[in-house]
Amino acid sequence: MSKPSVINIGFCGLGTVGQGVWKHLSASRAALEARLGARLELYRVAVRNPGKARGVDIPAAKLTTDALAVAIDPAVHIVCELIGGTALAREVTLAALARGKIVVSANKALLCESGAEIFAAARKGGGHFFFEASVAGGIPIIKALREGLIANRFPRIYGILNGTCNYLLTRMEREGVSYADVLADAKRLGYAEADETLDVQGWDTAHKAAILAYLAHGMWVKTDQMLVEGITRITQTDIVHAAQLGYGIKLLAVITRDFEANQLFVRVHPTLLPRRLVLANVDGVYNGIAVTGDVVGTTIYIGRGAGQDATASAVIGDIADAVTLLTSGKSVVVPDEAAAIHAGGRKGVKLAPLESICSRYYLRLEVRDQPGVLAQVATIMAQNRVSIESVIQRGSRLPDAAMLILTTHQSNEQAIRTTLAGLAQLASVLEEPLLLRIGDFEE
Amino acid sequence: MSKPSVINIGFCGLGTVGQGVWKHLSASRAALEARLGARLELYRVAVRNPGKARGVDIPAAKLTTDALAVAIDPAVHIVCELIGGTALAREVTLAALARGKIVVSANKALLCESGAEIFAAARKGGGHFFFEASVAGGIPIIKALREGLIANRFPRIYGILNGTCNYLLTRMEREGVSYADVLADAKRLGYAEADETLDVQGWDTAHKAAILAYLAHGMWVKTDQMLVEGITRITQTDIVHAAQLGYGIKLLAVITRDFEANQLFVRVHPTLLPRRLVLANVDGVYNGIAVTGDVVGTTIYIGRGAGQDATASAVIGDIADAVTLLTSGKSVVVPDEAAAIHAGGRKGVKLAPLESICSRYYLRLEVRDQPGVLAQVATIMAQNRVSIESVIQRGSRLPDAAMLILTTHQSNEQAIRTTLAGLAQLASVLEEPLLLRIGDFEE
Repeated sequence: MSKPSVINIGFCGLGTVGQGVWKHLSASRAALEARLGARLELYRVAVRNPGKARGVDIPAAKLTTDALAVAIDPAVHIVCELIGGTALAREVTLAALARGKIVVSANKALLCESGAEIFAAARKGGGHFFFEASVAGGIPIIKALREGLIANRFPRIYGILNGTCNYLLTRMEREGVSYADVLADAKRLGYAEADETLDVQGWDTAHKAAILAYLAHGMWVKTDQMLVEGITRITQTDIVHAAQLGYGIKLLAVITRDFEANQLFVRVHPTLLPRRLVLANVDGVYNGIAVTGDVVGTTIYIGRGAGQDATASAVIGDIADAVTLLTSGKSVVVPDEAAAIHAGGRKGVKLAPLESICSRYYLRLEVRDQPGVLAQVATIMAQNRVSIESVIQRGSRLPDAAMLILTTHQSNEQAIRTTLAGLAQLASVLEEPLLLRIGDFEE
Repeated sequence: MSKPSVINIGFCGLGTVGQGVWKHLSASRAALEARLGARLELYRVAVRNPGKARGVDIPAAKLTTDALAVAIDPAVHIVCELIGGTALAREVTLAALARGKIVVSANKALLCESGAEIFAAARKGGGHFFFEASVAGGIPIIKALREGLIANRFPRIYGILNGTCNYLLTRMEREGVSYADVLADAKRLGYAEADETLDVQGWDTAHKAAILAYLAHGMWVKTDQMLVEGITRITQTDIVHAAQLGYGIKLLAVITRDFEANQLFVRVHPTLLPRRLVLANVDGVYNGIAVTGDVVGTTIYIGRGAGQDATASAVIGDIADAVTLLTSGKSVVVPDEAAAIHAGGRKGVKLAPLESICSRYYLRLEVRDQPGVLAQVATIMAQNRVSIESVIQRGSRLPDAAMLILTTHQSNEQAIRTTLAGLAQLASVLEEPLLLRIGDFEE
């Protein structure tokens, strides 16, 4: 494709995000065109139902129901894949990339499932795949990792990547109400999906973590290779005790790389985060990411992680980059970024074993209220070399039961798992223990 | 310049930042080359004294004392101008740009003084000028504003842009010591320059504010068109009272644009920032910037604002962008960014009049301890329609004097200036009043 002076943009999908992109792109087109030195044409739009009323005004002649036709249309330079899901979206993406087009996408699930295939298709076909909107909405974190911080290797990246979970936890903390009550209200207000599973079980965060890990370390980590835990079992008791200990509870993605051992670990779990840390104070629907680079130190990024406008801002940023790429006549052969990351002394990275993932832990147990139970619990912990830092015993909501809240000194994921398995064997332990990690991060 | 496979980098200046860039570029060269698809050659280095011992090992054959020779050397593709100052640095920059080279610079003073000239030279000669390291050190804020957030117009940008001032204010707050004592200690520890004037009087922050304002609004605002106040008169009294009112004191740059009236205002002053805001908790040598975009909402960026490594990270990010530009064979004609920003419905932006810059204010007065003084003060404020929100009277360090601490309701810069002038006329006011702005920002 040699320097087109008019850039034709094709939309596949025009839901909430698509309409936002259309709206803001229409509004800022003159400014963007002047800045980018090219004319932008909102060329063609594929929707499932052309008759449906929409919040944006689109000429009927531009509408089609055939997303694939938009993706392979020779006149289309940039394909905005905003269909969602991983079926048609994948087909459309691969078809466009095979034809050397640039695909702009917010589709984290697709990228996480088919990232390697997508980037291979882009290399083979001479296309490009841009995905700023897939992680942390309007925060330009992809660009920061890929470009701004390119001088760095990243021993640790951690972040709040799911606005729904952060909203739920923030309201639980501020209003002192239960998870179930806040969730019901959040659904009513549109802050949680009708089916909240993907968000609250941590899978959405895991998808985003996989993308950040790929960008930083050139390796696609599957969600089943991660430790993924959600927020559904967190109670007011946990929030109150965490606060008393000086912590807030946040659902975090944590990506750590040990460059000595060349090991990578990706995990998603609710974390007790010391109040002094900036991210402990990122509340509501906001996302926040703390990136530690070996040259720059820690930089932190905060903003709205979802929503029509924030996501549109990121998509339009990608479109602008795509236009720059197209008008610069850049060679269609691009270096293989993942291979390159490995090549730079980063070859052969392996997933870290559970023994090497260290943390302090918070443990809540419901136990029979009878003599000797604490001794049993403490014995199992000692057998696994998990050292207790503090214990609080309180009344339980269960009859004839007590609640034990323990924190541990530094231990590791393998030891704590064996401990939990051992505790589960005890007749005196009445429920599956709740385990939370304590995030003693430096900034 | 058509797609060189080896990119030759010339250094002009090799002080702290230059040595950091050399060191990290040498260390990460293999990774960068694989990623960028080009070989990087650390080609030639101009220093004042070639015999001087340095922390980095540079072959003698690469050294010269002639910075201009490096800048105009036909073999050099990228010139790292790290000389500092505005004399030789300007000469070197303009010479390189005139020859179509890419200049990478951390020189905020030069950019602020000669920005328009530099960008004109770049356009004319077909060169480029990159300056990520000039604002907020390792935080990729320039890239975020220019690229990631390109869909946005920016009604407000505010930030902590000077690490020295933030360090001083943080220590005053945490340790309860005086400005003079903290400053002396900071000089001893290397956190403040021997001559601290540029930092503590706000001029360094003003330079950075000018650059952010240019990026966001396409207009070079001179520092004498700004309101610039420093931190030298802040006392423990102010810090303690601010804390009691729920505020921390931060030296902020505040860039506001009223798109209706098409007015821009740039100011630098110590600000009472509500504790609930993220930036109120950005402490020590860290910088932080809150950018409000009309599409994305507010995004916040935090990181080390200075220092060898953080600055080197930003410079290397620019070098990588320069390499991408060079290897893509991009046209040497680039759109005029400033003109383009104006063109996009942003034409004819004017500086806002003082009447339109509204705020609440904090005022500390040393007055004679005698009847009627408070009435005199209140009368002058009322005459200027500045409405008092709270008054505290306390003992003064001066003999036979009292200290008045007032906060006002919303007023404006014109009214408060007239008020201050009026107060200065009163025989009962013993010192120039201290005025601080209250930053009631939303996030």
